Amino acid sequence: MATASIITIGDELLIGQTIDTNSAWMAQQLNKIGVWVKRRVAVGDVWDEIWTALDEESNHSQIILITGGLGPTADDITKPLLCDYFGGKMIVSDAALQNVKDIFTKLNRPIIERNLKQAEVPDVCTVLNNRRGTAPGMWFNKDGKIYVSMPGVPNEMKGIMLDYVLPQLPALFNLPIVYHQTLLTAGQGESFLAEMIKDFEEALPGYIKLAYLPNYGMVRLRLTGRGADKVAIAKEVNEKFLILKLLVKEYMVTDTDEPMELIIGKILRDHNKTMGTAESCTGGAIASLITSIPGSSNYFKGSIVSYANDVKENLLLVSADTLKTTGAVSEETVTQMVKGAINNLGVDYAVATSGILGPGGGTPEKPVGMVWVAVGNKEKTVTQKFQWRFDRQRNTDLTVQNALNMLRKFILLEQ
Amino acid sequence: MATASIITIGDELLIGQTIDTNSAWMAQQLNKIGVWVKRRVAVGDVWDEIWTALDEESNHSQIILITGGLGPTADDITKPLLCDYFGGKMIVSDAALQNVKDIFTKLNRPIIERNLKQAEVPDVCTVLNNRRGTAPGMWFNKDGKIYVSMPGVPNEMKGIMLDYVLPQLPALFNLPIVYHQTLLTAGQGESFLAEMIKDFEEALPGYIKLAYLPNYGMVRLRLTGRGADKVAIAKEVNEKFLILKLLVKEYMVTDTDEPMELIIGKILRDHNKTMGTAESCTGGAIASLITSIPGSSNYFKGSIVSYANDVKENLLLVSADTLKTTGAVSEETVTQMVKGAINNLGVDYAVATSGILGPGGGTPEKPVGMVWVAVGNKEKTVTQKFQWRFDRQRNTDLTVQNALNMLRKFILLEQ
Repeated sequence: MATASIITIGDELLIGQTIDTNSAWMAQQLNKIGVWVKRRVAVGDVWDEIWTALDEESNHSQIILITGGLGPTADDITKPLLCDYFGGKMIVSDAALQNVKDIFTKLNRPIIERNLKQAEVPDVCTVLNNRRGTAPGMWFNKDGKIYVSMPGVPNEMKGIMLDYVLPQLPALFNLPIVYHQTLLTAGQGESFLAEMIKDFEEALPGYIKLAYLPNYGMVRLRLTGRGADKVAIAKEVNEKFLILKLLVKEYMVTDTDEPMELIIGKILRDHNKTMGTAESCTGGAIASLITSIPGSSNYFKGSIVSYANDVKENLLLVSADTLKTTGAVSEETVTQMVKGAINNLGVDYAVATSGILGPGGGTPEKPVGMVWVAVGNKEKTVTQKFQWRFDRQRNTDLTVQNALNMLRKFILLEQ
Repeated sequence: MATASIITIGDELLIGQTIDTNSAWMAQQLNKIGVWVKRRVAVGDVWDEIWTALDEESNHSQIILITGGLGPTADDITKPLLCDYFGGKMIVSDAALQNVKDIFTKLNRPIIERNLKQAEVPDVCTVLNNRRGTAPGMWFNKDGKIYVSMPGVPNEMKGIMLDYVLPQLPALFNLPIVYHQTLLTAGQGESFLAEMIKDFEEALPGYIKLAYLPNYGMVRLRLTGRGADKVAIAKEVNEKFLILKLLVKEYMVTDTDEPMELIIGKILRDHNKTMGTAESCTGGAIASLITSIPGSSNYFKGSIVSYANDVKENLLLVSADTLKTTGAVSEETVTQMVKGAINNLGVDYAVATSGILGPGGGTPEKPVGMVWVAVGNKEKTVTQKFQWRFDRQRNTDLTVQNALNMLRKFILLEQ
């Protein structure tokens, strides 16, 4: 099997100022074409450490992908290092120079010396054009291994991966077929599910693996098969997947590897229905997630984020009496919020949230982490109380995901 | 200087199913106490690869922190491996067992065999209690190096780091003082700023470093000083920071290392003012970001997310005529949205967005990436047109950050 190491370069990763999202995307893409990412390594902007990482990773993997360290400012040492490492000398790449000039012309900004230096590359590499930025990608071959250096800016790296790296690797390696099937469950923990499907898991052949991927109080189960024959491996994984679906039927949310916001969107689109949200504690996070899907304007009309009680009264028509007697965090309030959203946004379905996500604001009766969620249409409302025990961000994420799951179930039952 | 390596274990990192946020948090915390994270490595759930990573990282660093691989399902091999690696045998930890039982009692769930196994630990480690989960932390010493194994669940790892690792390291190493000062600029690129402060940067002593951290079209500049004497290094970094602030004065947004949503919150709180949002293309992302700050209910009242035009008309009182003649993505529409939000949410300030974030929906007159933003109060509105060139997510983030920066400037000018 072809193996890859991803080396990310930059002090910002080692002091925690930047979260590395590049590696996850690269790993996903490589996995799809049958390249196994064996290791991911992050090192600082330090000559010896980058050099050592190149040495070590070339012992581990056949493909070494490097991101970062190519910006125009002084702390970048990656390019001269690569030049030394592969025994070349720096020259100006005409293609890269033209790219720099084109970009600055388009931006209508003056070019300075630093920008021109971006067009310099070691003469022992193949230059990979960067459609989205001034730093070119560089492809090196050494001792039968492949090294590709790319900028750390996510969309520039993605462009070079999609334009050059991913299309060229399959021809250079005899890549196996990798085939996944994933389903999502809700309502039971990892241990319980593992116990439930123990016999199934033990009977799997060595080339099909089962993984448990817990998140937001839900668990994804993924079957991964590897083999030489695309049709055969897909057939076998699909057969096992059918059995797995029957085994966990009762807890299964969906049998696709798609996020909840996309699943909801598809259901609404299929039934030609619209939705909106009335959010107190989630503060717009549900609306924001729903609208992260392109084309969501086909089924999402809007949201009333009612952090303040007078917004709940004025725009969602929650009664002042309810707010006074049961409080904003109550079944009655979220029920009225759903009705208000359906009427004022003119939607078929609405979801409403109200709770205390922390860290402060709890009382003995309504502790931090307590959240009421309601979903409904014109005729009917379903409510549920949750009690989360995490930090503000995670409590928010859990509320969003579980509220969307409630909405999904409600819509499917009503259809 | 004390150096650390962070090893994250789990196939989910290598197929890109999970983004590693743990390492960034750990690096931040370690950096604060003067431990330099030299390398971050991710490996799969593979015996040899974990073993090799332990060997290699103990050559690189004095402190090796390991997360992941401790869950209750079958693909976890980390604990037996650690037992072998450090030459111990597995025993049941009474403290860990009690913790498992307490957690299941609290959750009111039956304990199964798999859960009890979580209380088994190598007899050569010190058990670190996990307040938030069933898998205990484990502290090993070998050949003068420190190894700590923690669960991969973020809040469980954080609990063990805060309770044990971070308090205990300073006593074991002679840690240097690390002192940072950071400022945020907007309106100029990295290259331009670097040119502007070139002389300043070249004159910095070796123990004070300047870093450029670009994000969302803004650039953070960070000075980092290292030394033995806390007072002396802070004094010197502060003096340099004062000069730096003067040099980039014209582009400086803030001289603190705080996110925009926190800066806005502080300004509103200081002036005892409230805000709300009227969001079309950003779909609630501004509201969601503002409310991610605990206590934001003191100044944030709510939002009207008007994805559909009839919501713009009904809840934000945008005139049907405007929507017909200039369209939803126009200066007139966002100006009216600000007015509508101020009136209907009852707030002092509002921000409004309307645009085409992509990938589809563009026209020759209004191409993908075109966004109008307005900020204002009862008396006055300021508008700006942006033209982004990235993907949907990045176009959204850029709109959110720049809209908040417009609001920040507006509020400060009005006070």
